[in-house]
Amino acid sequence: MTQNTVEKTSLTLLGLGAMGTALARTWLSAGHPLTVWNRTPARAAALAAEGARVADSAAEAVAANTLIVMCLLDDASVDEVLVDADLTGRDLVNLTTSTPAQARTRAEWARERGARYLDGGIMAVPPMIGVPEAGGYVFYSGSRELFERHRGTLGIPAGTTYVGEDAGFAALHDVALLSAMYGMFAGAAHAFALIRKEDIDPAALAPLLADWLVAMAPAVHQTADQLRSGDYTKGVVSNLAMQVAGTPTFLSTAEQQGVSPELLNPYFELMGRRLAEGSGEEDLTGVIDLLVR
Amino acid sequence: MTQNTVEKTSLTLLGLGAMGTALARTWLSAGHPLTVWNRTPARAAALAAEGARVADSAAEAVAANTLIVMCLLDDASVDEVLVDADLTGRDLVNLTTSTPAQARTRAEWARERGARYLDGGIMAVPPMIGVPEAGGYVFYSGSRELFERHRGTLGIPAGTTYVGEDAGFAALHDVALLSAMYGMFAGAAHAFALIRKEDIDPAALAPLLADWLVAMAPAVHQTADQLRSGDYTKGVVSNLAMQVAGTPTFLSTAEQQGVSPELLNPYFELMGRRLAEGSGEEDLTGVIDLLVR
Ligand SMILES: NC(=O)c1ccc[n+]([C@@H]2O[C@H](COP(=O)([O-])OP(=O)(O)OC[C@H]3O[C@@H](n4cnc5c(N)ncnc54)[C@H](OP(=O)(O)O)[C@@H]3O)[C@@H](O)[C@H]2O)c1
Ligand SMILES: NC(=O)c1ccc[n+]([C@@H]2O[C@H](COP(=O)([O-])OP(=O)(O)OC[C@H]3O[C@@H](n4cnc5c(N)ncnc54)[C@H](OP(=O)(O)O)[C@@H]3O)[C@@H](O)[C@H]2O)c1
Repeated sequence: MTQNTVEKTSLTLLGLGAMGTALARTWLSAGHPLTVWNRTPARAAALAAEGARVADSAAEAVAANTLIVMCLLDDASVDEVLVDADLTGRDLVNLTTSTPAQARTRAEWARERGARYLDGGIMAVPPMIGVPEAGGYVFYSGSRELFERHRGTLGIPAGTTYVGEDAGFAALHDVALLSAMYGMFAGAAHAFALIRKEDIDPAALAPLLADWLVAMAPAVHQTADQLRSGDYTKGVVSNLAMQVAGTPTFLSTAEQQGVSPELLNPYFELMGRRLAEGSGEEDLTGVIDLLVR
Repeated sequence: MTQNTVEKTSLTLLGLGAMGTALARTWLSAGHPLTVWNRTPARAAALAAEGARVADSAAEAVAANTLIVMCLLDDASVDEVLVDADLTGRDLVNLTTSTPAQARTRAEWARERGARYLDGGIMAVPPMIGVPEAGGYVFYSGSRELFERHRGTLGIPAGTTYVGEDAGFAALHDVALLSAMYGMFAGAAHAFALIRKEDIDPAALAPLLADWLVAMAPAVHQTADQLRSGDYTKGVVSNLAMQVAGTPTFLSTAEQQGVSPELLNPYFELMGRRLAEGSGEEDLTGVIDLLVR
């Protein structure tokens, strides 16, 4: 080794689906010694040609390195894969999508088996892995020490965002952001449905829609500020009373365009309920309180 | 007048609510001779001090200029205000929020009274009026000739975006964008609800949420492309089958966090229905077809 060569952490990756394969390639091209294992061995063959060492069993793959990354289908498959493995002294990084409760239980399970545990939630699709300009990243939570020790290695496939010692927080942040995205997609679906029967090119609406959503997204900062202070009237421009008064225009337009209001109704109903509680001077933030039991 | 002074179009503005007052101020400061009228005369007093001519009746205000801008509460108030006015030869620009059908009927009504008609939908709140860097603008539709003739004057308070001869299109674009925004706000409300009982600062979630929504908003371009081609599998990264398989994680997380799934359910149900039709290889675009009757 020359003076300038830093030894690259050697690691094991369990699970070579679409995401696992994308992750594996980035570590291999960055020069990290990589041991892989996949239930269906065929998927490991291509990676062997790219320099990966292929283990014959999950237990063998786990024995090969201290740092073990998992990218399996779901929490149940993690159980199946690790049933025979000795996890003592292992640094377990679980990128398998799970709920916060599953991640917390898994962290406890790992601790009982003598392993350190870090949970991850991947905010990217495979084509964004290893492409920093695509902006994908992974939420991490659980052992901060483990995160700090391996952040360089973990940062190879995508950016890293540590969100706390609670092992469930990565999953919680992941689900929170994706839930918000589905809301936005639902709104966009309604918008495209409204013009479906008109002589309007969807490709002409798209940039207007994208720009508008981008311009309105920062409204979440004001929401956060109101949630922190508990004062939902802080900085209000269009109050709840005005906005509820406007909802019939949205519903009549949907009706006129032959579009089901099913994606708009639930939010409008919550706005109406909050108004009925006497919160007309507030922003839309009070709706959040109505959602939490 | 000096050589460099271009005569500014003189105009009339009916309606001095929060929005009308903001519009009036921008024309006055830009040096446009402005006649105003408001049902409650007190609201015109401040503007008189700033140089507006105050008419005693709506009919008198309409008689004063060719270009007449209206910014009233709703379509019914337009009827009430203009009942006695002679609209012959007038250029009517109606910025009052209405549905596409109301705008179309209003355009016909104006034509019968010998007026040209342009309908507008304001994509801004009053503090954004006269502040170009705030990015607000107004959708216009109806007479293109009228739009071209007055675009300079109409561009003083906010940007102008002409969307077609159909008088209903400005309202339709307005409602489409705002509907999509409510979807995004609903998604963000769910996200904030998920962390409500956790030791997570909403102000720490907000930038992650805003950045994610901004990163995902351009997905509407692919949606538009698929709608145009009719091929909803074009460019798919995460297909419908994969996404539907992921929905239990979102619903279980909501359940675990004590959050009602009412804002997520309708979109997930449509995704499930589309999948059941055999569209597992598609993107989410097929949901739009299910919304249109
Ligand atoms: N793809 C994405 O866009 C994306 C984005 C963010 C997060 N993720 C998450 O990343 C993880 C992997 O996703 P993916 O896209 O790679 O999924 P995938 O292509 O379906 O691959 C699933 C992987 O899990 C393995 N597996 C499934 N059940 C198993 C079991 N019972 N025992 C052993 N191995 C099992 C599969 O092995 P076989 O090859 O033997 O079937 C395969 O390696 C998931 O948790 C997913 O939610 C994916
Ligand atoms: N404010 C916003 O954020 C915003 C954003 C986009 C679009 N808009 C649209 O802009 C329009 C005006 O909004 P705004 O915020 O200015 O509302 P506003 O502050 O409530 O003012 C309403 C205006 O309409 C007048 N009016 C109501 N009913 C009337 C009637 N029957 N006869 C005569 N005049 C009547 C009011 O006169 P009085 O003073 O006599 O009550 C007042 O001038 C609405 O269509 C609104 O949807 C507003």
